Amino acid sequence: MAAGFTTDDVFAAHLGGKLSVSLRAPLVDARDLSMLYTPGVAEVCRAIAADPAVAATHTWSRRLVAVISDGTAVLGLGNIGPRAALPVMEGKSALLKVFAGLDSIPLVLDTTDTDEIIAVVRAVAPSFGAINLEDISAPRCFEVERALVEALDIPVMHDDQHGTAVVVLAALTNALALTGRAAADARVVIAGAGAAGVACARILLGAGICDVVVVDSVGVLHPDRPALPPVKAELAQASNPRRVSGTLADAMAGADVFLGVSGGRMDPSLVTAMAADPIVMALANPTPEIEPDAALAAGAAVVATGRSDHPNQINNVLAFPGIFLGALDCGARRITEGMKMAAAGAIAGAVPGGPARERIVPGPFTPGLARTVADAVMAAAIADGVA
Amino acid sequence: MAAGFTTDDVFAAHLGGKLSVSLRAPLVDARDLSMLYTPGVAEVCRAIAADPAVAATHTWSRRLVAVISDGTAVLGLGNIGPRAALPVMEGKSALLKVFAGLDSIPLVLDTTDTDEIIAVVRAVAPSFGAINLEDISAPRCFEVERALVEALDIPVMHDDQHGTAVVVLAALTNALALTGRAAADARVVIAGAGAAGVACARILLGAGICDVVVVDSVGVLHPDRPALPPVKAELAQASNPRRVSGTLADAMAGADVFLGVSGGRMDPSLVTAMAADPIVMALANPTPEIEPDAALAAGAAVVATGRSDHPNQINNVLAFPGIFLGALDCGARRITEGMKMAAAGAIAGAVPGGPARERIVPGPFTPGLARTVADAVMAAAIADGVA
Repeated sequence: MAAGFTTDDVFAAHLGGKLSVSLRAPLVDARDLSMLYTPGVAEVCRAIAADPAVAATHTWSRRLVAVISDGTAVLGLGNIGPRAALPVMEGKSALLKVFAGLDSIPLVLDTTDTDEIIAVVRAVAPSFGAINLEDISAPRCFEVERALVEALDIPVMHDDQHGTAVVVLAALTNALALTGRAAADARVVIAGAGAAGVACARILLGAGICDVVVVDSVGVLHPDRPALPPVKAELAQASNPRRVSGTLADAMAGADVFLGVSGGRMDPSLVTAMAADPIVMALANPTPEIEPDAALAAGAAVVATGRSDHPNQINNVLAFPGIFLGALDCGARRITEGMKMAAAGAIAGAVPGGPARERIVPGPFTPGLARTVADAVMAAAIADGVA
Repeated sequence: MAAGFTTDDVFAAHLGGKLSVSLRAPLVDARDLSMLYTPGVAEVCRAIAADPAVAATHTWSRRLVAVISDGTAVLGLGNIGPRAALPVMEGKSALLKVFAGLDSIPLVLDTTDTDEIIAVVRAVAPSFGAINLEDISAPRCFEVERALVEALDIPVMHDDQHGTAVVVLAALTNALALTGRAAADARVVIAGAGAAGVACARILLGAGICDVVVVDSVGVLHPDRPALPPVKAELAQASNPRRVSGTLADAMAGADVFLGVSGGRMDPSLVTAMAADPIVMALANPTPEIEPDAALAAGAAVVATGRSDHPNQINNVLAFPGIFLGALDCGARRITEGMKMAAAGAIAGAVPGGPARERIVPGPFTPGLARTVADAVMAAAIADGVA
């Protein structure tokens, strides 16, 4: 447990759950009851039946985010099921409220069937303004997200993919600048080809980092590798321009950036084998692929982890509140690559006092961060024609 | 629109929706973030994975009621769809908070397929402590409720059926006493064999009112009537002991009680044809089957409607907050007939100053009403062995 609190403190803070529903207007007498419930409410129902746009202004749905999980890939805990996943989802809803002022509801699902998850989310969608998919294991998460983005005209985002990818791009933007590198010349190795690894690879490639090599538990993703599932096969084609093959060690020789999203462990000798002044982002939680001290001792110029007790915490909370706020503020029908890039740029630019090697991203409580991200996301949504 | 407010007032009260999510504990600094989100939250997740009972104490789900509708039978508006139904569902959630202190979330579904509704509710059930089905049209509502009661080990209740039935039984208990009638001798005619009509017939039969005759749009439900759907066929067997046949007028001759849950209109001459001092409960909303003045002029001793601008408003809000509160307070796995009967008894006994002909039920703001109902429901749940 991290410093500053005990397990007892954590359980006390969770007693009764983290969320509560309240009324936006008083309901204390017969007049209130007649206005907010029958017969008054029928007027609003009729208005929405005649013009669905009235639902956006006269129900809470338009700015309500569903945080939806099947509990199959929760934090570092794996497939712990819907009930055990609920505290994380309540936490996400709490963060959306605290950082973006958005109402949000956790929904955990008693099914892991891809088609059934898609059907359930489609069915409940009229209740919500946006869908945050969470902690759904790969490769099902890719198909669930793809199908829902296609089926629904509200923003749908799997945060484990894109929230992570946005913050990684923000952090890497600053780390590359601090170490005097250009994106186009940087060699990046990504260890892990799950939800986060795939999304990080895609956003880095989209951001002009051409030399991305992805390594999974078998080895380097390469077009000639047999029996690759569709998502990995596509990524093998799009990445690895030098057609490296072999193991993580083969990929790491001379690399500028290590990005760990695997949960595996890495020997410090692999950092030593990187280019001079390498960037090490060891994001596995709670145990990074390499301890920051060990990475620094092996020559790393910049080290980031997923932990709050080290400098440079790569935390989705920097991204998702502002992304959803921006998307909902402008009525975006989906979240485009441009909106994610814009969010990353806004985060990279929001470090108080400017970036430094131990401060490549802003802290989560940086004043106005979500609003800054949201404004950038809105501008991109409008530019991309989805708002 | 009822007296005391305008359509503009109603729309102003609905602007932005009626609900909001808030945090139960502060989340203002890095320590809070580490406790309520990662890494602290993982402790709670692990505890629930090891012992699901921890979810009841350390998430909000245990006392969270889902208000779920497909928007097919909304108030007197009919099939207006999920988005237009949402204001009513937000209203139900607001009432659960105001009257019972329970958190509640509206979920409107973009499907009217019975099997799909059942599958969706089963899938989202781990997120909730109880399910309030709402405004789902007959006969699908019967199968949806039956299947979910069977599949889930949390309380599931279709309020249009049972909330209405409970308040009708409470009101009728007092009205029969005030007019000097015994339940066993009373002749009751129910106009309407939809969700409310079927549930009212069942609860009255269960409460010892033997002579119940149900009339639908075709005529009196009778075992010999051809092509009755299953629910009506079953009710035709269980009711109508004198084997009356024909029309509503045939059933009304000499009846003690008229219960209208049909939305049709009734001529005052049918009240004149009833027994002396008849009881007329004309519950169609917003237009009763017969206006109270006309019923009184035709000889009615007691008149009730569904409207707040007449005496004796038969309103589900008298029942459902206390029923769910009691069921959740004692951890009931389902809502039994005994629990509904107990709720009706508690409501009948809770009229401030005692019942009178223009006060056969308490008002919704009667202090402590939901608690009184909940206590009776809990006792019945324990007696029935479901808590």
